[in-house]
Amino acid sequence: MKTIGIGILGLGTVGSGVVRVLQKHHDDFLRDQEIDLKLVAVSSRRDIQARQLGLADIYSPDPSHVTANPEVDIAVELIGGTDAAYQHIQAALRANKSVVTANKALIATHGRELMSLAAEHCVELAFEAAVGGGIPIIGPLRHNLASNRILSIIGIVNGTTNYMLGRMSDAGLDYATALAEAQELGYAEADPAADVEGLDAAAKIAILATIAYNTDIRLEQVPTQGISSLTPTDMQAAAEAGYVVKLLAVANRSAEGIDIRVHPAMVEQSHPLASVTGVFNAIYVVGDAVGETMFYGRGAGEEPTASSVVGDLIELARHQTYQKVIAQPVWDTEDLPLADGGKIASRFYLRLPVLDKPGTLATSASVFAKHGISVASMVQHGARDGQAELIYFTHLAPTAAVETALTELTASGLLTNAPSCIRTMNAGE
Amino acid sequence: MKTIGIGILGLGTVGSGVVRVLQKHHDDFLRDQEIDLKLVAVSSRRDIQARQLGLADIYSPDPSHVTANPEVDIAVELIGGTDAAYQHIQAALRANKSVVTANKALIATHGRELMSLAAEHCVELAFEAAVGGGIPIIGPLRHNLASNRILSIIGIVNGTTNYMLGRMSDAGLDYATALAEAQELGYAEADPAADVEGLDAAAKIAILATIAYNTDIRLEQVPTQGISSLTPTDMQAAAEAGYVVKLLAVANRSAEGIDIRVHPAMVEQSHPLASVTGVFNAIYVVGDAVGETMFYGRGAGEEPTASSVVGDLIELARHQTYQKVIAQPVWDTEDLPLADGGKIASRFYLRLPVLDKPGTLATSASVFAKHGISVASMVQHGARDGQAELIYFTHLAPTAAVETALTELTASGLLTNAPSCIRTMNAGE
Repeated sequence: MKTIGIGILGLGTVGSGVVRVLQKHHDDFLRDQEIDLKLVAVSSRRDIQARQLGLADIYSPDPSHVTANPEVDIAVELIGGTDAAYQHIQAALRANKSVVTANKALIATHGRELMSLAAEHCVELAFEAAVGGGIPIIGPLRHNLASNRILSIIGIVNGTTNYMLGRMSDAGLDYATALAEAQELGYAEADPAADVEGLDAAAKIAILATIAYNTDIRLEQVPTQGISSLTPTDMQAAAEAGYVVKLLAVANRSAEGIDIRVHPAMVEQSHPLASVTGVFNAIYVVGDAVGETMFYGRGAGEEPTASSVVGDLIELARHQTYQKVIAQPVWDTEDLPLADGGKIASRFYLRLPVLDKPGTLATSASVFAKHGISVASMVQHGARDGQAELIYFTHLAPTAAVETALTELTASGLLTNAPSCIRTMNAGE
Repeated sequence: MKTIGIGILGLGTVGSGVVRVLQKHHDDFLRDQEIDLKLVAVSSRRDIQARQLGLADIYSPDPSHVTANPEVDIAVELIGGTDAAYQHIQAALRANKSVVTANKALIATHGRELMSLAAEHCVELAFEAAVGGGIPIIGPLRHNLASNRILSIIGIVNGTTNYMLGRMSDAGLDYATALAEAQELGYAEADPAADVEGLDAAAKIAILATIAYNTDIRLEQVPTQGISSLTPTDMQAAAEAGYVVKLLAVANRSAEGIDIRVHPAMVEQSHPLASVTGVFNAIYVVGDAVGETMFYGRGAGEEPTASSVVGDLIELARHQTYQKVIAQPVWDTEDLPLADGGKIASRFYLRLPVLDKPGTLATSASVFAKHGISVASMVQHGARDGQAELIYFTHLAPTAAVETALTELTASGLLTNAPSCIRTMNAGE
């Protein structure tokens, strides 16, 4: 049996996890999968992790020790970022090595181009770990569900914000306290922007949409709304109306093209996504044949991410062990257009902080009416010290109309603070 | 590009669904997957469906029209049963055709042997649709999660019983009424035994365990308890204690071997499996690296099942189009023993119908004590007309001890009716 040489770039948390899984399960993979995975080269800036893992003899600080090493059949990129990692992956592919990566930002920016480069060199590029950590989702979309026209993907793909929203909802914490708690527990970075502003989720939904809709969709094309303006009042109003608030990454196939976006949303408590709590992730997929499916698990962390990286390694190694020709055709893309997000209609939850005085309700209602937004319900919350909050639920309304109405309400001086705007998600919509 | 010839045996509900997906998406598969799937032969007992589907010109009642047809590259077996289907699959594999099947009973009985036959002939045998209908689970277990030592699989894999249990719980229906309703809706067969006695679930968990634990486990080795003895009282007691009742198919890797079984169980309301309602299925998998994952979707029906069958067809067709050598090594099995089910400890819910008279509580409690079963809580329900029910929740107790105690209680004449015995499932157990 051919030994498959593995080289790893980057020995941080995930890199070390991958090494440990390879060491622990080498014999299992030999027996169960009939493949012989051998770690032959590692590279990282400093040698401390390599020494701790007993890999000093195959360590070099020079990345070409992996990317240009003739013993390496598959290179694993776990450096992160879009600069050095991009160079190293290109170098490895050009040297006819298959590549496994967990780098969501890079794949969401240069994925299609790197896939083409891999195909040119008759090697493979795999990135199951880039979305949903340990959850198998790229594989099922590419293989098992390839029989479907995918109609909708709705993901809870950021554990940090899902944890925070849960705490704001269950314990009534405000945003700042929930963030501080998440940081203390190691769930949020010191600079939490990528998580709380929705950029991490945007990269992931761009990757999923690119695969599911066979259309090149990049990170910068995903409109993103974060969670920093949400308050415990929003959570309470959601609960009273039968919803929970989640940060959703959405990519629908609509008549107008791909409707892609990241934003907080109210999810009906009976929807499978509503029960995804804490740092867990889930990706809900609707296909024309399969109907509704959902994939659930740990979206981050050393071991879950290592699970997906090594899963890819096993798959690529089996191809190299048992197949003379590597199969990765360069697909024609479907090149679907992006839909105009402003025309997408949703039911909205709108919270307007106002002065508690006669006429504010009438004024706000008339602005909604003027823009054709039909109101399903309205209640006034917490009038105190001359302040109050008007809580609206609308019927289906185009996003652009709601945005215009909110801009107009803000400009009118009626609002004492920024309004809150959350889409609701109902079964069958 | 090579055209891949498809032959279908059986044009019932699923067979017709597969034909429709192939007709509808031929051009999508060509563009997105670069494969050309062509239906070249169909066979069924009568020609009516072939004529309805516009396939009269490639129809024959003779199965060898598919299994011995030189134009057929991949044969799809959708006849069901373990007699004729077994012969036809063997014939196709011996004629060097890959085979896709949705036949759970056959794979749970002869799966390993047919996989070996396929490997001998350098072709493939795929059966994603045999478990969980449209839910991708065989693929993820074989590929993405192959990096893990799988520790536990817990499935809700029978939609009929999940629907019935939901109605018994939510609407307070008794078993017979729930069954009649399920039959009326087409969710249950006229002869419901395979579903309600747990045999359908047993076949599915045997297949999953065979894949996940790389050990040959057959249907007849799975101890099975059905749902026919459950009453609305059980559902209500479960709800009061924070549980929902589900028919679970369980396969754990324990120190003693594979602990495999099918039975009703109480699932904590906060567990992801608790929110799987109606005819939906879900398979909850725990791996040593990935941690907890769950795969959710429609477990039956024409279109979901066709989704999995055609997913397998695409995968096998890609292998045949882009690879000179088909890769399906014959694995060495791990040959794990089956665990002694009697030694498996669970927390049990036990309902004892008794005469409402002094001493019954003391007598039943003493029988439990004698067999080392520690009681966590006891309440008496519904004393009326001299009848009452004692509802026990136990601490962890070996299954055999509980069975012996119940046998002894029944023999003692204390019980006025059959007792109810349901394991509870707690997070982390």
